[in-house]
Amino acid sequence: MVWAAAKLFRRQGYSGTGLRDILAASGAARGSLYHHFPGGKEEIGAAAVTAAGSLVTETFQELANLSDSPADFLRRYTDLLVRWLEASKFRDGCPITTTLLETTPGSAAITAAGRAVFDDWSGVMEMLLARHGWPAERIAPTATAIIAGLEGALMLARVRGSSQPIRDTAEALCALLDGGLPGSS
Amino acid sequence: MVWAAAKLFRRQGYSGTGLRDILAASGAARGSLYHHFPGGKEEIGAAAVTAAGSLVTETFQELANLSDSPADFLRRYTDLLVRWLEASKFRDGCPITTTLLETTPGSAAITAAGRAVFDDWSGVMEMLLARHGWPAERIAPTATAIIAGLEGALMLARVRGSSQPIRDTAEALCALLDGGLPGSS
Repeated sequence: MVWAAAKLFRRQGYSGTGLRDILAASGAARGSLYHHFPGGKEEIGAAAVTAAGSLVTETFQELANLSDSPADFLRRYTDLLVRWLEASKFRDGCPITTTLLETTPGSAAITAAGRAVFDDWSGVMEMLLARHGWPAERIAPTATAIIAGLEGALMLARVRGSSQPIRDTAEALCALLDGGLPGSS
Repeated sequence: MVWAAAKLFRRQGYSGTGLRDILAASGAARGSLYHHFPGGKEEIGAAAVTAAGSLVTETFQELANLSDSPADFLRRYTDLLVRWLEASKFRDGCPITTTLLETTPGSAAITAAGRAVFDDWSGVMEMLLARHGWPAERIAPTATAIIAGLEGALMLARVRGSSQPIRDTAEALCALLDGGLPGSS
């Protein structure tokens, strides 16, 4: 039910998705919805942000372990992102952004779920930058800039119906990452 | 009416805003809504994206004319953005992103309005980079990365309830802009 909700929120937004849509897409019974989510739609929204965010965290972690450098990580992730986005014909964006923009800061539960996801994502990026010798004071800002760039690029790509904004943003961020170490530029 | 709609969409999303809310916030009569917007809510959505996007374009243009460099432009714009966001207690994000994420690519009218706005924004950035001697092949990707970074950072700032993601992303982008010219790093 949580995955069905996450998919619908990603395509059509949180407000635009009714409990009825979630039940229809998941095949679950109405009673089980209220049993598992006594907090109703807001609780499903928070659970969907957590579940979808965790899946991205796992992907980040796997790619970070495979990568030779932060720029190599970004290229690998960008390739995945472009493949997913093109397979969905630019309908599936970030599984958490739309919901967060509609509900933050109004919903405390969904806002808290979003913050925890961004903490996890930043944590993976920060560890990767630290492992590759980035100076401590530049790690957090660079991790944030990577996540912000990817989120913004995904939005631009959906609106444009093209992967080019993702490729362009990744290219610019890789220039920053490749040239980012003191003495390496 | 268009401005009232843009403000509501920015805070609570497109689907979460009813025509009734727009009428109440604008003080307009229902008849005038259908007179000016025979296409109903979708037409108001497209008009709100166009109007709010144009205001940002004008701000970009003014700051670009005042700025000594692309990094100087980005610092000036970031200061404005942080002031607006803090004044709204992190409720007002980008006036067009939420609506676009909820309706793209489903609504052709709103998608087209969004593309035109991003073309305008990119145009200002590209002219600024060209004026400061950026090589032709790096202009479009860098302009896209700046817009993507700002959009993503604005979203992160709302979720975090802090301006730090905007400051961090701007700092990283300024490092890219300051070090971005061949021979200047």
